[in-house]
Amino acid sequence: MKSFVVVGCGRFGSAVAETLYNLGNEVLAIDGDEEVIEAISGHVTHAVQADVMDENVMRELGIRNFDVAVISIASNLEASILATLIVKELGVKKVVAKAQSDLHGKVLRKIGADKVIFPERDMGVRVAHNLSSKGIIDFIELSPEYSIMEIQSVKQWTGKSLAQLRLRNKYGINVMAIKRGSDINVSPGPDDVICEGDILLALGSISDMARIEEKTSE
Amino acid sequence: MKSFVVVGCGRFGSAVAETLYNLGNEVLAIDGDEEVIEAISGHVTHAVQADVMDENVMRELGIRNFDVAVISIASNLEASILATLIVKELGVKKVVAKAQSDLHGKVLRKIGADKVIFPERDMGVRVAHNLSSKGIIDFIELSPEYSIMEIQSVKQWTGKSLAQLRLRNKYGINVMAIKRGSDINVSPGPDDVICEGDILLALGSISDMARIEEKTSE
Ligand SMILES: Nc1ncnc2c1ncn2[C@@H]1O[C@H](COP(=O)(O)OP(=O)(O)OP(=O)(O)O)[C@@H](O)[C@H]1O
Ligand SMILES: Nc1ncnc2c1ncn2[C@@H]1O[C@H](COP(=O)(O)OP(=O)(O)OP(=O)(O)O)[C@@H](O)[C@H]1O
Ligand SMILES: [Ca+2]
Ligand SMILES: [Ca+2]
Ligand SMILES: [Ca+2]
Ligand SMILES: [Ca+2]
Repeated sequence: MKSFVVVGCGRFGSAVAETLYNLGNEVLAIDGDEEVIEAISGHVTHAVQADVMDENVMRELGIRNFDVAVISIASNLEASILATLIVKELGVKKVVAKAQSDLHGKVLRKIGADKVIFPERDMGVRVAHNLSSKGIIDFIELSPEYSIMEIQSVKQWTGKSLAQLRLRNKYGINVMAIKRGSDINVSPGPDDVICEGDILLALGSISDMARIEEKTSE
Repeated sequence: MKSFVVVGCGRFGSAVAETLYNLGNEVLAIDGDEEVIEAISGHVTHAVQADVMDENVMRELGIRNFDVAVISIASNLEASILATLIVKELGVKKVVAKAQSDLHGKVLRKIGADKVIFPERDMGVRVAHNLSSKGIIDFIELSPEYSIMEIQSVKQWTGKSLAQLRLRNKYGINVMAIKRGSDINVSPGPDDVICEGDILLALGSISDMARIEEKTSE
């Protein structure tokens, strides 16, 4: 368990705050908007309405005692920069800040943000990968070449065993787990047979996945 | 290769459009803002300045021939809804739309969006998981219980073999691959030794990861 102060509870900030709380952390959520605070108050440890550009208010809230501050104000550049400065000066060890442009990100890093996040851009990249290869449900990029991918099994695979499919020989894809409903087979062997709806966890390259699709579509 | 029309090129839309193009797809980017179109024009197949609420303009752009439309306008609710309606009516097979609230998402689904995306919220959830367990670099949620995680190896593991670490017995964590710089060992055995900086790809639960941290921190 760690303690987090989330400064600004828009769409990004509120998702961060609520998820951190659900994972068992202590979370203080701050926002200037009364309605926003009302909406989030049941889903975090404490929710306080305050202007985060007011250093005295922030000091009184005991901000310096928190392990991590997440500054999730981006449209309001002034508030974003001032809040980052204030939590840094109050002594928070780790400060993560949301930016809306490269320039904004550079400024945040200069004034001490330990990590800068571009949620819209990062999510755009993820969504594009998922759309480009329709079989890929989610992925983790390991290197420019390799990814861990969650792959929807294609119709032609149903009823075939991994030995018959020869995915590793044909596409360089290494099946590491098979998900069937809420069951997960974490050591699939050559005799395991694919059922309709199975999701494969595989190590391979996204371009190899594209080859599977070309061969199996239509 | 598929063909995509990206309607609205803000932070999310432009990342989607450029990534799809870099993955080898045909991408038409549309935005009402001349500067936005200038900025993106070198990074997609075609970039056109147009009002996406004008059905005739959209028809003339040949929108119906595209495989997928990504409607990435969220702050402008009217434009988002109208653009979704128009591309659906023009016959685009798959329509993906960005929403900024649950209600907005419901409306988009009702009028025919095949998939609705909430980038700020989804990224907030991801960032919270990464901050809560500092060892987790990235993850794919497989079920409420299991995730595939990219884990930064901790200091205490350096020089020890997988057999010595007994991660599966102690934490229920299954190491599936070890990443060392740009090398990836996709079939790690009991004798493989962890080096400083290694990244482990593991199947397990995020709460088990939290237990590793408690035991190894400080
Ligand atoms: N000075 C301030 N003090 C306290 N809260 C503030 C201040 N300025 C902005 N906020 C709050 O921060 C939240 C997010 O602000 P903003 O819309 O600028 O960020 P955003 O990054 O665009 O949000 P989203 O995550 O929804 O995309 C809002 O709820 C707003 O009320
Ligand atoms: N009627 C329209 N015709 C063409 N383009 C439009 C129209 N309305 C908005 N846009 C464009 O859509 C883009 C994104 O718009 P908006 O800021 O509303 O979305 P957003 O979802 O908040 O963006 P972001 O991804 O940056 O968070 C902008 O570049 C804007 O110029
Ligand atoms: Ca915003
Ligand atoms: Ca906003
Ligand atoms: Ca946004
Ligand atoms: Ca915007």
